[in-house]
Amino acid sequence: MGKALPRSPLAPAGFPELPEVRGLELGVAEAGTRYRGRLDAMLAVLPEGSAVAGVLTRSATASSDVLGCREVLARGGTGRAAILVSAGNANAFTGKAGDGSVAAIRTGVAGAAGVPEARVLTSATGVIGEPLPHDRILAVLDRLAAGGASWEDAANAIRTTDTFPKGAGGRVGGAALAGIAKGSGMIAPDMATMLAYVFTDAAIRADRLQAMLARQAARTFNRITVDSDTSTSDTLLLAATGMAGPVDEAAFEEALHGVLLDLAHQIVRDGEGATKFVTVRVTGAETEGDAERVARAIADSPLVKTAIAGEDPNWGRVVMAVGKSGARADRDRLAIRFGDVLVASDGWVHPGYREEDAAAHMKGREVTIHVNLGLGRAEATVWTCDLTHGYIDINADYRS
Amino acid sequence: MGKALPRSPLAPAGFPELPEVRGLELGVAEAGTRYRGRLDAMLAVLPEGSAVAGVLTRSATASSDVLGCREVLARGGTGRAAILVSAGNANAFTGKAGDGSVAAIRTGVAGAAGVPEARVLTSATGVIGEPLPHDRILAVLDRLAAGGASWEDAANAIRTTDTFPKGAGGRVGGAALAGIAKGSGMIAPDMATMLAYVFTDAAIRADRLQAMLARQAARTFNRITVDSDTSTSDTLLLAATGMAGPVDEAAFEEALHGVLLDLAHQIVRDGEGATKFVTVRVTGAETEGDAERVARAIADSPLVKTAIAGEDPNWGRVVMAVGKSGARADRDRLAIRFGDVLVASDGWVHPGYREEDAAAHMKGREVTIHVNLGLGRAEATVWTCDLTHGYIDINADYRS
Repeated sequence: MGKALPRSPLAPAGFPELPEVRGLELGVAEAGTRYRGRLDAMLAVLPEGSAVAGVLTRSATASSDVLGCREVLARGGTGRAAILVSAGNANAFTGKAGDGSVAAIRTGVAGAAGVPEARVLTSATGVIGEPLPHDRILAVLDRLAAGGASWEDAANAIRTTDTFPKGAGGRVGGAALAGIAKGSGMIAPDMATMLAYVFTDAAIRADRLQAMLARQAARTFNRITVDSDTSTSDTLLLAATGMAGPVDEAAFEEALHGVLLDLAHQIVRDGEGATKFVTVRVTGAETEGDAERVARAIADSPLVKTAIAGEDPNWGRVVMAVGKSGARADRDRLAIRFGDVLVASDGWVHPGYREEDAAAHMKGREVTIHVNLGLGRAEATVWTCDLTHGYIDINADYRS
Repeated sequence: MGKALPRSPLAPAGFPELPEVRGLELGVAEAGTRYRGRLDAMLAVLPEGSAVAGVLTRSATASSDVLGCREVLARGGTGRAAILVSAGNANAFTGKAGDGSVAAIRTGVAGAAGVPEARVLTSATGVIGEPLPHDRILAVLDRLAAGGASWEDAANAIRTTDTFPKGAGGRVGGAALAGIAKGSGMIAPDMATMLAYVFTDAAIRADRLQAMLARQAARTFNRITVDSDTSTSDTLLLAATGMAGPVDEAAFEEALHGVLLDLAHQIVRDGEGATKFVTVRVTGAETEGDAERVARAIADSPLVKTAIAGEDPNWGRVVMAVGKSGARADRDRLAIRFGDVLVASDGWVHPGYREEDAAAHMKGREVTIHVNLGLGRAEATVWTCDLTHGYIDINADYRS
């Protein structure tokens, strides 16, 4: 299972204070599917009138749990619902046995929590290709259904090798909004998995909840990258109990954006081996798609990420990444900044550029790369971390 | 300029014997644009009747030299021609000054080698964003034009931090075919650049030469990856002097494929920090495009590449990469082999699989991953290397 990893140097000071979401019951337990002596299962039970929205991995080899979530979400509607998450075994690439585990858990949760089977969502994260011993989860269902868990317990129960629990929340009018996430630690032979669960007691119709979540996931979770690899199990769910009544939906969506972005940034801050939190901002693009393509090419480039690890203001590698992105770009209109330092403009190094200024910015924990393509008004931002020996240690040298 | 790197453990025993290409004159010199005390410039002069074909980087921030090559190739036709390559400075992202350097070199080469300016092709590789001191190249043009260099000298003269010179060749009927290449070493703040020059004395029409080169580049150089980053300067040129007369063109194309593949493999074998040569073969796809997409997703995945570095037969990460590729795949039809060991089939680990068998294969210098998608008859192969601490050392810790 690998050695315990030290807490990320980019971790926040502590777990945040999160508001109570009316009608939501959180339960946690030690199921022991893989880990021993720690919380590894979480159950969220949602009351009558609840709506659930979700964004799931686009992987063609998605896990049985993801396939199950897709079915539940496709049905839509409101009513009692439950979300069960277990950590330690991903139940991915386990063939028909994986589908069977999901079915068994859904039946069990439906009975224990008084929820229709067709409204039970499940997630699993951890080792891949091993059968999920789901009897161990069934054995702790009563404890999970008893509720009473804190947000921090719930965030801890869904961790795999995350080095800190992740939570974020806020208020919109009289309604509360709070969520937890896990990622992107890893245990060989596992793959990183991003899971996030956000709850509100605002009353919002299921179809509008889904539309908001899709829009805001695209601008938050879908704009982070640690190593460009996509998990078979990525799951983001948003549930609304409705018990605080209607809210201003524009204000709600803005608050939702803030919570999703906060959780997404925490995942980057726990990226494997990360020592720098990197913001890649691209402006002056012809379209937002082009801006995102360039930002992602920079944020995914191993050469850019190793240069950041080495605290090297290597703008040549940024030019390279712009060029390979597939977006429209013009060498002679590019401007590149590290932090506030203008490095390159008009197709060449800026006349006033002094490498020591950019090098000073690169020494900080927070690095910003800003590329202005000089072609239009569209922009996009992608967040990532550096690529260090720690990444190789975690993924090559540690064995389960 | 970084410390000299040790010779790659994947390097061939020595430089191969290459045939003489009639009519081709190779010259080398020490221009000293960046390096001291080593060959760093190469000139190939081609006689009357020569045709030249090329495949160049698709980067939107391509170097001035690449833009110049595009112009020359677009004109087509046959006649005397020259190719000048210098190592140490990429002349990339140097604005209008870069275009000026190319123009000055073309004028100089035209005079020294008796070649029309419109048929002088140039390449440069090395540090980016610094003006190319092209006067130093002009100063050694007479020596370059004097010819008489060996293939090995020419291969050495185009190296940057390559740990060995790269050459490959063969015969087709009465004609010779031989080429040299460089890549993918790196000096911070440089980016890896792939350059390759292949020559023949066969007589082949320029348009057919170009068509063959495009087809075979797609199956060789465009199917290797070290770190998924694309240089601003990648250049592959093929020149035919015609002095050996016509050949069977199907046989020629097959020989060309062999030479290009050999050079491409040598570049992977000199990949930064590489300790394993990895063949990723995908069969059973609906289309060749899908097969290539899956093979590339596996070969570019940092998680797969670190697992290979750790000699870990981590088939879960292969499943992940298949899933993220965007190609059509069906979890329950996948079969995965490491070497000859069947690891997974029918959506789960193979019943007879013993991890020690796959682990034994992973300990070798040559690793093969074979994925059968079980959907159709199309296939593709991509070659790569592992991702090791050596890659981080070269790209993060070394500074120029």
